[in-house]
Amino acid sequence: MKQALTIFGGTGDLTFRKLLPALYNMSASGKLPAERIIIIGRRDYTTQTYCEAAREWVRRFSRIVFREEAYRQFIQGIRYYQMDFTQEAAYDALDDFYQESRIDAHIFYFAVAPRFFPVIAQGLGRVTGAEQGKVILEKPFGESLKAAEELNDKLEAFFDPESIYRIDHYLGKEMIRNIQTIRFTNPIFKNIWNADYIDYIQISAMENVGVETRAGYYDTSGAMKDMVQNHLFQILSIVAMERPQDLSPEGMHEEQIRVLKALRPVSPEQIGSQLVLAQYEGYRQEPGVSPHSVTETYAALKVFIDNERWKGTPFYIRTGKKLGRREMEVTIVFKRPEPGIEPDILVVKIQPEEGVHLQFNIKKPGDTDEISQAKMDFCQSCSLENRINTPEAYERLLGACLRGERSWFSQWDQIETSWNYIDQLRSAYRQAGNPIYVYPSGSNGPEAADELLEAEGHQWIVEEP
Amino acid sequence: MKQALTIFGGTGDLTFRKLLPALYNMSASGKLPAERIIIIGRRDYTTQTYCEAAREWVRRFSRIVFREEAYRQFIQGIRYYQMDFTQEAAYDALDDFYQESRIDAHIFYFAVAPRFFPVIAQGLGRVTGAEQGKVILEKPFGESLKAAEELNDKLEAFFDPESIYRIDHYLGKEMIRNIQTIRFTNPIFKNIWNADYIDYIQISAMENVGVETRAGYYDTSGAMKDMVQNHLFQILSIVAMERPQDLSPEGMHEEQIRVLKALRPVSPEQIGSQLVLAQYEGYRQEPGVSPHSVTETYAALKVFIDNERWKGTPFYIRTGKKLGRREMEVTIVFKRPEPGIEPDILVVKIQPEEGVHLQFNIKKPGDTDEISQAKMDFCQSCSLENRINTPEAYERLLGACLRGERSWFSQWDQIETSWNYIDQLRSAYRQAGNPIYVYPSGSNGPEAADELLEAEGHQWIVEEP
Repeated sequence: MKQALTIFGGTGDLTFRKLLPALYNMSASGKLPAERIIIIGRRDYTTQTYCEAAREWVRRFSRIVFREEAYRQFIQGIRYYQMDFTQEAAYDALDDFYQESRIDAHIFYFAVAPRFFPVIAQGLGRVTGAEQGKVILEKPFGESLKAAEELNDKLEAFFDPESIYRIDHYLGKEMIRNIQTIRFTNPIFKNIWNADYIDYIQISAMENVGVETRAGYYDTSGAMKDMVQNHLFQILSIVAMERPQDLSPEGMHEEQIRVLKALRPVSPEQIGSQLVLAQYEGYRQEPGVSPHSVTETYAALKVFIDNERWKGTPFYIRTGKKLGRREMEVTIVFKRPEPGIEPDILVVKIQPEEGVHLQFNIKKPGDTDEISQAKMDFCQSCSLENRINTPEAYERLLGACLRGERSWFSQWDQIETSWNYIDQLRSAYRQAGNPIYVYPSGSNGPEAADELLEAEGHQWIVEEP
Repeated sequence: MKQALTIFGGTGDLTFRKLLPALYNMSASGKLPAERIIIIGRRDYTTQTYCEAAREWVRRFSRIVFREEAYRQFIQGIRYYQMDFTQEAAYDALDDFYQESRIDAHIFYFAVAPRFFPVIAQGLGRVTGAEQGKVILEKPFGESLKAAEELNDKLEAFFDPESIYRIDHYLGKEMIRNIQTIRFTNPIFKNIWNADYIDYIQISAMENVGVETRAGYYDTSGAMKDMVQNHLFQILSIVAMERPQDLSPEGMHEEQIRVLKALRPVSPEQIGSQLVLAQYEGYRQEPGVSPHSVTETYAALKVFIDNERWKGTPFYIRTGKKLGRREMEVTIVFKRPEPGIEPDILVVKIQPEEGVHLQFNIKKPGDTDEISQAKMDFCQSCSLENRINTPEAYERLLGACLRGERSWFSQWDQIETSWNYIDQLRSAYRQAGNPIYVYPSGSNGPEAADELLEAEGHQWIVEEP
């Protein structure tokens, strides 16, 4: 068996910036997921000119130091194959190419817009054994529950559902993978991870950049589809899930989906106290954005999980662009031990810094018995060793796909359940006639988002650096 | 009312190195505990020459930067009073001196060897109102239960028991005072502070120096009397006590004594698995030490507290001189979540570094789901601000005495209970004919001390810097 990784969209940004550097790193550390890498693109490259062009991208975006010798070794496995993947007939020639190359095991990477997924799947029907291969799909997976369902039906008609790997590259992030370890292997946290001890939980993904070059895509999507439906709901489900019987993909998956299904339904009457959508000032003037756009660049949600563990505990989720900071973190705010004493707060920092810290109460230093707050800190990314040795998300996910580790990919029913809930939220928001708020660039978002929490006597926890 | 602090032993080391620098700092920050400071000594000083002599000590040992102006202001309240405090008749003149100075409220500081306590107390019988004053006593308080009882009887015959402040300067240490705050104001720790969650607790006070200039005193005392009976049992009682109804001195005291009274009795049959005494190599050759000395410079104990909270949890206590490290810390080792997974470990660092850290389990960084250990760290003494602003133990204790805060001094019944237990241990050890082990300088103590823990499947936790 000779295995190939075939990348559709091989001359796109994603391939140059992420996939090739990741594959180069895997090659350099002897972990390349396939013997051959077939790059498929419409442009007029040869294997040689393609590898020449790719060199600078790899050099620039590789996490390990670039070495010419390692690069030369890496590209020995690369073949550039020019074709128009929208032309079904072209797949016959592709099949011949695979035969000549004696390739009989496949991983297909669809690094293209989702609208091309069905046509590629159909074309692969002409490739011998392609339907027994694995397929890796980039997000977004659909644009609504309905669109996602259609897309999924077409893919599942061709590939085995178990062979479809839907990338959620946040799931490859070190500290997201770590949440379950922290939760389940530390008695100090494990026993108090419930509504009896936890006051509220915050999942926050703040970006300081705007839409940049992605305006065309982003303006048809928005924060809810781009971040909340996939990444933040994934994190929510890992933070809130019950301990699986075992940490198998099926066990994890089953518990995650159970969380999403327990999300308390929303109604137009209550949506005002649960969801805030907003746009940054000047968004409509961005190139590629409609001057009348009502797409949200910011979303803040309050959701409840109706089960025994989380009865009454609000989960606050927020994400947005052009904010005053760039950080992604999960914040667990424990209940106050008594009125007037600050709560213990556990923060799992996901990016850009990776680490964990715990704010707790101590005696104020000096000749007093007053209580003040101190912070125990573990910074994983501060250690150079970890920074160098931690594979980036794409490496990790490619490796996991190769090994058939499905737990770190989105499963279809998770996507379906998330879409379903997001559609509910959005439709209730529209029905209630709630506005798209406006917030200044560099702020922490609209005031309305603070009011979501104030209604419960809570507030967004912002880490001082 | 004009209040004076009178120091007996005013030309001794303790006064120059500790008390005067502490008082200078209190003066400089407007917290001097008395209007007058009367220095009593046998030597031929005037107030002026005494203050001249004291300047260098204060300059050298003050925690805040020495300023001449602040020193001049400080010494305005000082009077040197020459007398032989062993001569009862001399106290009549002292009384006259107080009358002339219109002093009618007293704090007496006995910075002298305990054998002088009774004679000074007797002399003070001639000083008007002295018996209504407070008295501060330096350790050691007696040399056995019997000696301590006699000493106490004599003092209580003169002073109100509530006015006797027995210095345990470890109780003035920032992180020891902090233990109760950490325990009781953080739900994350509060709820798991018991035998259900804690595997064992270690209280470790390691010194890297030998007996130095204190050989004469030390060789008649030893580690059990010098460190365990007082300091380490105090810490043990704070770590293990139930939460007092309120944090009043009486409340604290009552719960501490309850812990000491619940210490499981020892017998000669079992003492070998509970106590290890040892001497560092070369101790008998130290100047001032008997060449046949059997005084221990190292002690390691395993004790149990027979109450509901601590059923079955061993407390390991160790202290020694000439060891490979200098550190004092309390280490809470939680139970393993399951076999093969490391326990969470909370360390309260008392000295020289002050801080708290928590070792917990994380996912090993990189493309693996293996578990490894990380450390969240809060270093209180790393902040320059805290180092400068934290009053040293003596300042704190003098201030507390002035304000009548008794919770940070040893109470008689604590001392009595501790002596009683220590006497039991020592006598069982002797009866069993157990040896004084020998350990090399710079080691972590004798191997026999490791065996104490190994019998329970435990080990001394040593912090890597």
